[in-house]
Amino acid sequence: MAEVAPDPSPLIIGGGGETVRRPLPDSLHVNGGDGTYSYTRNSYFQRLAANVVKERIKGAITMKLDVENLSSTSNTIYIADLGCAVGPNAFDAMQDVVHFIQQKYTLQCPQSNTTLQFLVLFNDQPSNDFNTLFTSLPRERPYYAAGVPGSFHRRLFPESSIHFVHCSYALHWLSKVPEELLDKNCGAWNKGRIHYTNAPNEVVQAYASQFAKDMEEFLCARAMEIVTGGMMTIIMPGLPNEMPYSQLAASLMYDFMASTFMDMANEGLVSEDEVDSFNLPIYTPSPAEMASVVEKNGHFSIEMLELTNPASLVGGPVDIKAWVIHVRAAMEGMFIKHFSTDIIDEMFDRLTKKLFMFTEQVESGYKDRTQLLVVLIRK
Amino acid sequence: MAEVAPDPSPLIIGGGGETVRRPLPDSLHVNGGDGTYSYTRNSYFQRLAANVVKERIKGAITMKLDVENLSSTSNTIYIADLGCAVGPNAFDAMQDVVHFIQQKYTLQCPQSNTTLQFLVLFNDQPSNDFNTLFTSLPRERPYYAAGVPGSFHRRLFPESSIHFVHCSYALHWLSKVPEELLDKNCGAWNKGRIHYTNAPNEVVQAYASQFAKDMEEFLCARAMEIVTGGMMTIIMPGLPNEMPYSQLAASLMYDFMASTFMDMANEGLVSEDEVDSFNLPIYTPSPAEMASVVEKNGHFSIEMLELTNPASLVGGPVDIKAWVIHVRAAMEGMFIKHFSTDIIDEMFDRLTKKLFMFTEQVESGYKDRTQLLVVLIRK
Repeated sequence: MAEVAPDPSPLIIGGGGETVRRPLPDSLHVNGGDGTYSYTRNSYFQRLAANVVKERIKGAITMKLDVENLSSTSNTIYIADLGCAVGPNAFDAMQDVVHFIQQKYTLQCPQSNTTLQFLVLFNDQPSNDFNTLFTSLPRERPYYAAGVPGSFHRRLFPESSIHFVHCSYALHWLSKVPEELLDKNCGAWNKGRIHYTNAPNEVVQAYASQFAKDMEEFLCARAMEIVTGGMMTIIMPGLPNEMPYSQLAASLMYDFMASTFMDMANEGLVSEDEVDSFNLPIYTPSPAEMASVVEKNGHFSIEMLELTNPASLVGGPVDIKAWVIHVRAAMEGMFIKHFSTDIIDEMFDRLTKKLFMFTEQVESGYKDRTQLLVVLIRK
Repeated sequence: MAEVAPDPSPLIIGGGGETVRRPLPDSLHVNGGDGTYSYTRNSYFQRLAANVVKERIKGAITMKLDVENLSSTSNTIYIADLGCAVGPNAFDAMQDVVHFIQQKYTLQCPQSNTTLQFLVLFNDQPSNDFNTLFTSLPRERPYYAAGVPGSFHRRLFPESSIHFVHCSYALHWLSKVPEELLDKNCGAWNKGRIHYTNAPNEVVQAYASQFAKDMEEFLCARAMEIVTGGMMTIIMPGLPNEMPYSQLAASLMYDFMASTFMDMANEGLVSEDEVDSFNLPIYTPSPAEMASVVEKNGHFSIEMLELTNPASLVGGPVDIKAWVIHVRAAMEGMFIKHFSTDIIDEMFDRLTKKLFMFTEQVESGYKDRTQLLVVLIRK
């Protein structure tokens, strides 16, 4: 089981939803294997989303990455994909990155006879389904491949050993649920909700603090590992500055999950305590917030930090059924861990029905420019 | 399922048997998980065997490895463990190697303020149970860890990127069964046997040729990957020069397996064709043979090449039950792939009984100095 789960943004028919492809907290898993609800079978939409930023990353590498300098001591480029999960997206992304770096090298050193070599280190939590990842690695690939188990909030690689880090749809996962949410005597007790959507300010603040703390740990670890001049690209859900989270179409999913669980609590299918003590460790920062944590950390220069529109290629109505199946593929493990297994089908069935009943609300939620793309260079 | 299988040498009670801990051909698997016949639960004896060579490897690193030079361009040492399987042995061995290299560095550079860092790349076939390997990695370890899926008969790492390679009980596995063994019109057709024990010379030659070819591929790949001055340690079953394989106690296991299968064929439990077409891709070279393939390859200097006595610590009678369980843990997957699953219990039950009936023969087989230890330096 991979440590992944999606940002439950809606999937746009014919376009790329600002969806999730990736891991994180130890309690979160994407479904392994290749069954109906497997992550492998349900990650097509993430691939579309990835294509949207592909051109931007190509531009960043071409303009900002000094490949000639990075390859001056060795002709091997070490690339890390943090939160790789099990699906094919990681392979596509890594193949692109390798090609862009090769192209940049040819541009910088047209006379060189050196052939760059690449080692891609696919990282995810130790409980990720690395067996599936490894057996589905493309036979023909322009890089050597390795898997690296461990939390990216801590050190994963030796000092100054990495030239390029890619982290896609992973950093919105907090390392843990903020503790205050479970304290009944605290203003941040998150009774009747499973997220900070439409929650009191204390709850939102608890989430924001945890995100800032996690990012600082993440950036400190990467600062040790990435060589000077090395690049890091981050793709994750993002919120326009000043916009409340509840305006996002994505927030509806959490609200409806919470109300579905409360309905089920009222019918005695789950206990109210179970719902009160369950919180999704997911956070969506604004560009301003992200800039602030990176600047506070101080080890990276910001080369690009912008909201992109993951559905910009093609528009269309939200495909609710596909959206729910996708979210289930990535989140089921987390629910199973907290609730009993046999209520999961029921919850997702009810959730789908509820979303169909409120199609208009789903469609009217803010969907544009909700994907944050960050390109950093190690100072 | 890990791509492993043991050399079926007998386990000596209270001592270390010259057993197997490791992988290889794609058709071979150790049992994953942690059940009764799992490799994880049944690899204690290999650990003992590993301890026997520990002191020799320490000596080789101390005397022959120029750590100061290897760490002159970067303070990270890259170590590969080829054929790591899933058990704890790989972790013990890697911890030892890291410590020995650290000690040598302190010896060479007593005034240095540099702390060496280590990345250990655990390699095995893509179908190895890396999930088990990763979740059982020691929390406290003196190295960063990665898994690398792939056959070590081919390239696994970038050019000149590895400083130390360890390969324990893996190279006796051939990359495939020699094709001649399956040709009814060829002198090497191996009818009624599953190995070259007591086989005609053509069969023995077919095995020997395949081993030489595999070793050449292995050495060529490693020569590209290991830096000049880098070290490779190989531990595997070995046969004294000039001794026929059938004199080894280990050979009894194959003979009895073959005769057990033939008994079952006579009773109609398996077909004779199934037995005739099944051959174990396992080869045990002599020191002279090993020296010859290394010298022919030409990329490595031989620093140590000797038969050691894996049971030298403590003697005692062979523990037949433990021996069979151990072999089953490592080989079951291979049998299941060729024969139907439901005859496996029966075969191993009969095999155990047969070995008990011939205890004297088991005890009288040659057991000393049947472990080959090779230390090479990349020229």
